[in-house]
Amino acid sequence: MSFSTQTAVMTFLNEVADKYPSAISLAAGRPTDQFAATLNPAALLKLFSVYESFASCTHHTTDKRPLLLQYGRTAGIINDLVAEQLRVDDDIIVDPERVLITAGCQEALALCLPALCPSPTDVVLLRNPTYIGAAGAAHAGGVNVYPIPNMFSELAEGIELAADQLRATGRQARALYLIPSFDNPTGEVLDQAQRSNILAVCARLQIVILEDNPYGMFRYDGAAVKPLAALDEAGCVIYLSTFSKTIAPAMRIGAATLPKTLFGDKSARQALWQQLVQRKSVLTLNTSQLTQAMVGGLLLESNCSLRPWIQPALNLYRNNRDAMLRQLQTELAPISDSIHWTRPSGGFFVSLDIPFKFDSRDVVDCATNCDVIVMPMSFFAFDDSQDQRVRLSFSAVEPQQICPAITSLAQYVASRIQHRAA
Amino acid sequence: MSFSTQTAVMTFLNEVADKYPSAISLAAGRPTDQFAATLNPAALLKLFSVYESFASCTHHTTDKRPLLLQYGRTAGIINDLVAEQLRVDDDIIVDPERVLITAGCQEALALCLPALCPSPTDVVLLRNPTYIGAAGAAHAGGVNVYPIPNMFSELAEGIELAADQLRATGRQARALYLIPSFDNPTGEVLDQAQRSNILAVCARLQIVILEDNPYGMFRYDGAAVKPLAALDEAGCVIYLSTFSKTIAPAMRIGAATLPKTLFGDKSARQALWQQLVQRKSVLTLNTSQLTQAMVGGLLLESNCSLRPWIQPALNLYRNNRDAMLRQLQTELAPISDSIHWTRPSGGFFVSLDIPFKFDSRDVVDCATNCDVIVMPMSFFAFDDSQDQRVRLSFSAVEPQQICPAITSLAQYVASRIQHRAA
Repeated sequence: MSFSTQTAVMTFLNEVADKYPSAISLAAGRPTDQFAATLNPAALLKLFSVYESFASCTHHTTDKRPLLLQYGRTAGIINDLVAEQLRVDDDIIVDPERVLITAGCQEALALCLPALCPSPTDVVLLRNPTYIGAAGAAHAGGVNVYPIPNMFSELAEGIELAADQLRATGRQARALYLIPSFDNPTGEVLDQAQRSNILAVCARLQIVILEDNPYGMFRYDGAAVKPLAALDEAGCVIYLSTFSKTIAPAMRIGAATLPKTLFGDKSARQALWQQLVQRKSVLTLNTSQLTQAMVGGLLLESNCSLRPWIQPALNLYRNNRDAMLRQLQTELAPISDSIHWTRPSGGFFVSLDIPFKFDSRDVVDCATNCDVIVMPMSFFAFDDSQDQRVRLSFSAVEPQQICPAITSLAQYVASRIQHRAA
Repeated sequence: MSFSTQTAVMTFLNEVADKYPSAISLAAGRPTDQFAATLNPAALLKLFSVYESFASCTHHTTDKRPLLLQYGRTAGIINDLVAEQLRVDDDIIVDPERVLITAGCQEALALCLPALCPSPTDVVLLRNPTYIGAAGAAHAGGVNVYPIPNMFSELAEGIELAADQLRATGRQARALYLIPSFDNPTGEVLDQAQRSNILAVCARLQIVILEDNPYGMFRYDGAAVKPLAALDEAGCVIYLSTFSKTIAPAMRIGAATLPKTLFGDKSARQALWQQLVQRKSVLTLNTSQLTQAMVGGLLLESNCSLRPWIQPALNLYRNNRDAMLRQLQTELAPISDSIHWTRPSGGFFVSLDIPFKFDSRDVVDCATNCDVIVMPMSFFAFDDSQDQRVRLSFSAVEPQQICPAITSLAQYVASRIQHRAA
């Protein structure tokens, strides 16, 4: 019911998985392992060498080989390539000098939140439910969080109300954390109109949006919606990149890209940049140049567009989603009218509404009796609004396991409903 | 005069180096570039594969290849190998479950300081001068710092006085940051008796020692002194490892190893471990399994002792130190009786006392007129006690550049003394 910590959830799920090794997990939100073979050691070495050759030509080093084994620039070395990838893949036009390379996107959150909310009365707004790591980074950085009221269909109205409520108690909404495309955990995508409204409200209230976009490139159907950063004219969006879903989580490479100005003020943006770099230098000094070089090599090899590169994974995820939705329709629709689920056009997650409470005891119950592990939505929530909801991941499960997993889950749901009726 | 920030110092030194490209730098404290060729891409690939094979045999994965491209365990995967290296190389006996792998040693500091000093009245003690990044990590984590009074020859007495002074103002010394072997910036090494005294004082006052030991393996002559962690019986030492000097900075692999108990209390140590893991999960999620695998591969290949591996670098540093000390004797001794310098038995640094103030303007002056860049000791200091002192690094300079650099520095020092006398 109350908000969980990342480690508590992971520990709990690992324990359940260890205890029920035959259970199929629809809980893990990681990318597929299927493409590990593509990035075998020889391929990784090649990517490193590609970047090394590029750096030898373009960077002005006195030695023949660039010093990729050394300490490096705090803000990173592949900023230009990441900026180009943002332009090509996401229509976000940026100078490389506004791209801060981080040790994964999680570090970007850990850097930005305290910098945007330095005072005890400053608050970051979060959706309810939301990605656990955002609340965790806020907590570790001493930043207070405030869940956006769920009462409106328009998120922009919720943001405005939250800002009002905070102001009434002497606090200020300074930042907003958002996954606008194929949200974790809900899978929702905000349409163009919603994005425009959110941008307008945040520009007016001077709330900086931390736009986290790990799933945006994984769209399976429907028209693309531009990231907030591509639509931002007021200077209120910090765009958070990650290569964990597009390349590999073990790279631990992310980026925070600042807007050209902060609400029209260029020097405020420059001051924020300095703060982020300073903070990065005392958290992790700099990001590994070895893994930066591998990411850089892949960007060079792919003309800075990762869209062709991710196509095999995208096809696998689309097929998994289709299989899951088909099986949900076949197995769950007949059980009850009060069972609903989302039909996401991208991302990794389906959100399933069930007519009973589902918490950690039920995870164990479901694993024990039906050999399926699923994620209670309440793990991501600030209140009891998500208690009758489950997150189903289709990204990291074997395609042939989806049908039996959903069939088993349906049996579990049916038995719970029967039990309640009895 | 006042304490500098890491980025401010690096930015300043880079600017000076860019402006005076012909100047020889004795300012950089990084390891030598000479051994980059040993860790060429093919060698890195081999290390990765060595670890991958090891992990395939020992870890229970269902797949043929371990999932080194995925997210990983928050506390790391090479804990057992690092524990064994601590035993073999440093006489520190630990269980792998007390070894937390971090994104470089800097992250270990950023994790430990706030965990040890949670209250606003909790304070970390630092030497004066000390490594800039320790004060920076404290600041970023909202932890107050207190420099240990310099008035005693015995550090233990200074620690006790600092704890008294803090107690008198309602504050508590909770942690002590220390580089006991070949300190950065002073190059000093604490002998066995001093270590025992410090351990006794800290055990009695329940002050946790963060023992940072980046240079300990680089001893050029004299008998080895055991790390505090190897002498600790009270449970007051957290040992900070880094592979930046022994393997390569770009690995960004460090470790924090907790004592068996925290002042005799095992559950307190376990609670601290949980806090550190939780905090790591929201700062950087986990440490790159790619670079962990490379470090792990090297540890496997070297039977978990890095001493033979570092021998070529150690020989180079010893020769550099000898060349620097010879040239200081030849060039600086004749100038004035009030010039003194240390004769370090290890590490990267010589500390030079000069009879005039030396600050950032003097760095520029010295670079302009004498083509040498050196580091004011005041950059690392909390007061003006280090104003007439300079840190000379011999780790990252070409051997043949040491003599001309010291000769030029002697000319600069002589001209400053003459100018003052005139």
